[in-house]
Amino acid sequence: MKRKLRYGMIGGGRGAFIGAVHRIAAGMDGEAELVAGAFSADAARSRASGADLHLDPERVYDNYEEMARAEAVQPAARRLDFVVIVTPNDRHYAPARRFLEAGFNVVCDKPITFSLAEARRLATVVRRTGKVFVLTHNYTGNPMVRQARELVRSGRLGRLRKVLVEYPQGWLSTRLEASGQKQAAWRTDPKRSGAAGAVGDIGTHAENLTHYITGLEIESVCADLTAFVPGRKLDDDANILVRFRGGAKGVIHCSQVSVGEENNLNIRVYGEHAALEWRQEQPDELVLKFADRPRQVWRRGHAYNGAASRRGTRLPPGHPEGYLEAFGNLYREAFRAIAAEVAGRRPSRNTDFPTVADGVRGMEFIAAVVRSARRGARWVQLPAS
Amino acid sequence: MKRKLRYGMIGGGRGAFIGAVHRIAAGMDGEAELVAGAFSADAARSRASGADLHLDPERVYDNYEEMARAEAVQPAARRLDFVVIVTPNDRHYAPARRFLEAGFNVVCDKPITFSLAEARRLATVVRRTGKVFVLTHNYTGNPMVRQARELVRSGRLGRLRKVLVEYPQGWLSTRLEASGQKQAAWRTDPKRSGAAGAVGDIGTHAENLTHYITGLEIESVCADLTAFVPGRKLDDDANILVRFRGGAKGVIHCSQVSVGEENNLNIRVYGEHAALEWRQEQPDELVLKFADRPRQVWRRGHAYNGAASRRGTRLPPGHPEGYLEAFGNLYREAFRAIAAEVAGRRPSRNTDFPTVADGVRGMEFIAAVVRSARRGARWVQLPAS
Amino acid sequence: MKRKLRYGMIGGGRGAFIGAVHRIAAGMDGEAELVAGAFSADAARSRASGADLHLDPERVYDNYEEMARAEAVQPAARRLDFVVIVTPNDRHYAPARRFLEAGFNVVCDKPITFSLAEARRLATVVRRTGKVFVLTHNYTGNPMVRQARELVRSGRLGRLRKVLVEYPQGWLSTRLEASGQKQAAWRTDPKRSGAAGAVGDIGTHAENLTHYITGLEIESVCADLTAFVPGRKLDDDANILVRFRGGAKGVIHCSQVSVGEENNLNIRVYGEHAALEWRQEQPDELVLKFADRPRQVWRRGHAYNGAASRRGTRLPPGHPEGYLEAFGNLYREAFRAIAAEVAGRRPSRNTDFPTVADGVRGMEFIAAVVRSARRGARWVQLPAS
Amino acid sequence: MKRKLRYGMIGGGRGAFIGAVHRIAAGMDGEAELVAGAFSADAARSRASGADLHLDPERVYDNYEEMARAEAVQPAARRLDFVVIVTPNDRHYAPARRFLEAGFNVVCDKPITFSLAEARRLATVVRRTGKVFVLTHNYTGNPMVRQARELVRSGRLGRLRKVLVEYPQGWLSTRLEASGQKQAAWRTDPKRSGAAGAVGDIGTHAENLTHYITGLEIESVCADLTAFVPGRKLDDDANILVRFRGGAKGVIHCSQVSVGEENNLNIRVYGEHAALEWRQEQPDELVLKFADRPRQVWRRGHAYNGAASRRGTRLPPGHPEGYLEAFGNLYREAFRAIAAEVAGRRPSRNTDFPTVADGVRGMEFIAAVVRSARRGARWVQLPAS
Repeated sequence: MKRKLRYGMIGGGRGAFIGAVHRIAAGMDGEAELVAGAFSADAARSRASGADLHLDPERVYDNYEEMARAEAVQPAARRLDFVVIVTPNDRHYAPARRFLEAGFNVVCDKPITFSLAEARRLATVVRRTGKVFVLTHNYTGNPMVRQARELVRSGRLGRLRKVLVEYPQGWLSTRLEASGQKQAAWRTDPKRSGAAGAVGDIGTHAENLTHYITGLEIESVCADLTAFVPGRKLDDDANILVRFRGGAKGVIHCSQVSVGEENNLNIRVYGEHAALEWRQEQPDELVLKFADRPRQVWRRGHAYNGAASRRGTRLPPGHPEGYLEAFGNLYREAFRAIAAEVAGRRPSRNTDFPTVADGVRGMEFIAAVVRSARRGARWVQLPAS
Repeated sequence: MKRKLRYGMIGGGRGAFIGAVHRIAAGMDGEAELVAGAFSADAARSRASGADLHLDPERVYDNYEEMARAEAVQPAARRLDFVVIVTPNDRHYAPARRFLEAGFNVVCDKPITFSLAEARRLATVVRRTGKVFVLTHNYTGNPMVRQARELVRSGRLGRLRKVLVEYPQGWLSTRLEASGQKQAAWRTDPKRSGAAGAVGDIGTHAENLTHYITGLEIESVCADLTAFVPGRKLDDDANILVRFRGGAKGVIHCSQVSVGEENNLNIRVYGEHAALEWRQEQPDELVLKFADRPRQVWRRGHAYNGAASRRGTRLPPGHPEGYLEAFGNLYREAFRAIAAEVAGRRPSRNTDFPTVADGVRGMEFIAAVVRSARRGARWVQLPAS
Repeated sequence: MKRKLRYGMIGGGRGAFIGAVHRIAAGMDGEAELVAGAFSADAARSRASGADLHLDPERVYDNYEEMARAEAVQPAARRLDFVVIVTPNDRHYAPARRFLEAGFNVVCDKPITFSLAEARRLATVVRRTGKVFVLTHNYTGNPMVRQARELVRSGRLGRLRKVLVEYPQGWLSTRLEASGQKQAAWRTDPKRSGAAGAVGDIGTHAENLTHYITGLEIESVCADLTAFVPGRKLDDDANILVRFRGGAKGVIHCSQVSVGEENNLNIRVYGEHAALEWRQEQPDELVLKFADRPRQVWRRGHAYNGAASRRGTRLPPGHPEGYLEAFGNLYREAFRAIAAEVAGRRPSRNTDFPTVADGVRGMEFIAAVVRSARRGARWVQLPAS
Repeated sequence: MKRKLRYGMIGGGRGAFIGAVHRIAAGMDGEAELVAGAFSADAARSRASGADLHLDPERVYDNYEEMARAEAVQPAARRLDFVVIVTPNDRHYAPARRFLEAGFNVVCDKPITFSLAEARRLATVVRRTGKVFVLTHNYTGNPMVRQARELVRSGRLGRLRKVLVEYPQGWLSTRLEASGQKQAAWRTDPKRSGAAGAVGDIGTHAENLTHYITGLEIESVCADLTAFVPGRKLDDDANILVRFRGGAKGVIHCSQVSVGEENNLNIRVYGEHAALEWRQEQPDELVLKFADRPRQVWRRGHAYNGAASRRGTRLPPGHPEGYLEAFGNLYREAFRAIAAEVAGRRPSRNTDFPTVADGVRGMEFIAAVVRSARRGARWVQLPAS
């Protein structure tokens, strides 16, 4: 009998947001079960979280080192197939490295690390250990994002000219971090988030989505960062001019003080022949625009979509899927690679999830944007990949 | 330690649609696990499905009777807390009755039974056994549907005048049942679906949604049913005039030959002071319209929504939720009632899921609509509730 | 030098709504000028209106009879080419007949007359006099409505199955007529509006639009009319089941108590192969839906639209046109016919405006709907055309 | 009797686009009539255009100088009240100056002149002559744009933080100018358009709209301009970072190679308390977003809108108005000022149209943007106003 994959979680205890998301996404198709965890830096909270999650108390740990030690010696029948890391950015690198080196596959929330240097070191660890590393830029799991990529690749848009990517949110319009709200507290703290605020949290999603759909590489950025809320140390708003290798241009802007906006990530790609538009808040649709033909609205779940898109859908058209299902698609892809790794098979080349390379590229983006802003919004080059 | 609820499933094997939906919905919050099932009338298919689902082969059965016998004698630590029935309509009543009488709580897909007579008998069984019975009219699990109900109840719309409910689909625009497609085959077969086709499958959702949001009761209907596709025996299209007790009027129309439509359920409710509009394909929004004020767009996940709506949301605003999450909300509500029943506690009155009474009312709706249509679209009264 | 057409107006004085609309529409392309009028039953108001409109006081009259007498003897160089009638329904027939018989072409607002009998008599007058008679069902002037018709005619939708037409408004949600508001006063008064309220005012637009786009003829109706506002004598809400000759079915509903709605006329037409959808409040778009291809959004002003649609557009795509421009298109079409008539040429067969035949059909629709409602919403046949 | 205003037109002959727009807009309310013109640099075309427009051939001229001479000596009863200039940019300054100095009021299309130097000289002429000068940045005539301005002024948004303005078009995606298309030819020709292409044509609209709604002044820009179509000499695409005096930030981007886009001007303004959004392609709506309240959709024509918005509407809500009506509103405002000037009255301060000051500011914007781009997208200051 085929078995479910077993996983453990670092972070994601009571009160966290993204931990629950990962658990729903990982468990959605009944292919994986959570069996261990170190859910919080606060040991009591970790244990309470484990109990909420119906875990065996013996596999609920006070911290990730203890967990790594104990789980490394589990018998094969109980051994974890992968570990999920959903802590703040400053606590990604150490556990990721620890578990990779202990022989576990790793799924890690974004941005990949606290700093670019850490990201590069982690890439070395991944390469050396040969384990599967999945970075959860979840929007690439959206079926119509996959279809967007396919349409670009098919040449239907022609040579690309312009890319517009927006990611406005409004939840940090006031000084929420002063209220003790956990999410706000660490995301606005340079000691925990890293060099960037909004750019690190959501700008990296924008960069990743751009790369995923268009395949374009950013050559240079000119970035104007602002901390609008008095007393805030990291940017809560960013306007960025972008030049891509090969001549395309673009704008990426993101914000967490765009009051009234929820999670309005969207992308528009203009080629010589056609344009496409995808909006995260209406994820089941993809709009194509032409010079001289009626617009087209491609919708999730239809047979006219390509294989990658169809593989990421659970419901017929018109039965809305959303954020969790897209997140679940990353896990679906990850499971194929992890199952292969666990079975000692060579992983398929046809996997579709962000990797450590995406993570490094995201950190290079952050670094360049921050440098540009510090120099008064001057152009800064990104390393060629 | 709090434990997960255990459930078994009748129907929902390989190739079925709604079975997988129920499994995702029931498992979404990690509160229940599937442990047994009779997944198909075809024993081999049932076993294969059980293996797909990582079940212990000993708890995968050839048919529901066998399952009922065997599961009735499981020790307490393994005993099922509830059974989910996701077979075609003609096979709801018998297993529902069997499991209720064997002391199990039951979750059943809609419409409740093959006939009104069966529904009424089942209501008696539910009453007699005192078990929890949940009918999965899933759209009532949508957070903004709950908010719509709250806004109506609050009096903000004033006395209701008009209700428009639409449910157009297009998937049966051609004679799909002739191609061997399973869903199409049984839904267009009067021996398996019952007296109505589209009206039974989706018209009942429209009726249920209307009742849930408005609290209005249908007094009489005047229905024009059509089977547009040649050779089809049951209606694939219905246009229905509706009169509600108390003077409100309305229209309900549904169709499975509205080519190009996906699952476009929507409702508009007009009161003396304000109107509301909800569209299933954009479920996170609820529009309010006024005579003399700007329109309002209420969105899922905000603190301004009422408790029932907020209880049914897993993500912050702007992170789209959809069909599965709403379905999961029904299970969430059901679990509270089931856990109470299992623990021997009196179930809370504050549960929010459709019951056997909704099922009976739905069958009365079908019966009245079919009678009206057979009489050439003449007015037919519904029983007072 | 080509000259502008000259016209006079009956009704449409100060405080009227539709008179100003006709003047803007008729004058939009600089092809016609208003030179005479009897603007109000109140002679002082008529004169004041004439002055507002910069008219020669000698051609401003106290009533239409006086105007007809005086204008009939104008020299050729000053003679009216047509007369526009924008009075309440009970005062359409008499002036229309009077001016037609005096040799003038006539443009008349809808519904054509107070009663079906009047409409039929007027049709005889039009036939006998050979003058041009234009009925301003203005929505048929919308470029994307014309495109909708062309797409139906082209066979792209296949044989038609279902038509849904909605016309909800909310402006009569309260007893506005009691406040002295002129529009509300006459439209709710059976002595001035005729047998129907909302059905006469806007239901006839819905019927006309249906016929224009689909070419279908209504065979029978089953209508539930309501006067929701206490004390109101005519229907302010109508729900109507429709059967078309040839087997298509449909629903037409209209309302003037759908609070919060503005002028939300819309139509959906479902054929065997494709469906179309047009919404008056977003008139520049036409949506096509298919079973197995992406949806298409056709937009005004593109070369891919047919000749009739392109002839009715003044601006490039994306520069919104609206109600007045569509109304102006009816006049544009009318001017070609009127100019031909004035010049003694045989009018082109290729004109595209509603005629007296549309007017008679509209009154037959009203009569059948009212009869159906009076009989308790029973089916009533319409005359074959 | 109040009389219509009389006007002449420079440019706008056969084949021109914007000339017809001005004529419809100016004539929409029956308050002005075209009586003279020099419609083309080609004398035969000018005469043919005059005949199309039913003008007295004696008042149709071969060029603007001839017209200025002849019209300057018309008797009072025939004298022009204003002149409309709708020639390419390089032929705005000379006729504007000539007619202003001859004592005529002037309405001029945008951008105001070929160069900033010309704009500043023209401002001097306007000041010296005391005549009315109206610059037709038509989008400020949109009723919901006016309402947006009022909402900002009312303080409802709080202190402004971020402004996003987009103006994508796609009509120059190919080398249309090589095909002989007149509009494309002069707009892509630096000898006729000036220093900028897309930025001059539509970027100035974006700048003007921003200033109109927000009242903010641009302090500096960082602009990346591109000519994507090979062989094109002027920018067809622009991405611009913007800093406003007082600390607000923003992005303005415009393009004429965003294939598939029509005329998609839109603006979003984020304040501390609320945000607003207006989209030119759906001009009758204005969306307000809040942190903690349902979104609001304000719609044209309602009594809840302010006076400036209500003054610019001709139809009830739900009867779409568009580009021409908004353009007509500029004329409506202009007529009040012109009528006052002609009558020798001091013009009202309460006029609502763009003036020569807006024109100078627009040229300063162009100059700064072009300078920034030439320096490789470096920050460039704008003069303080």
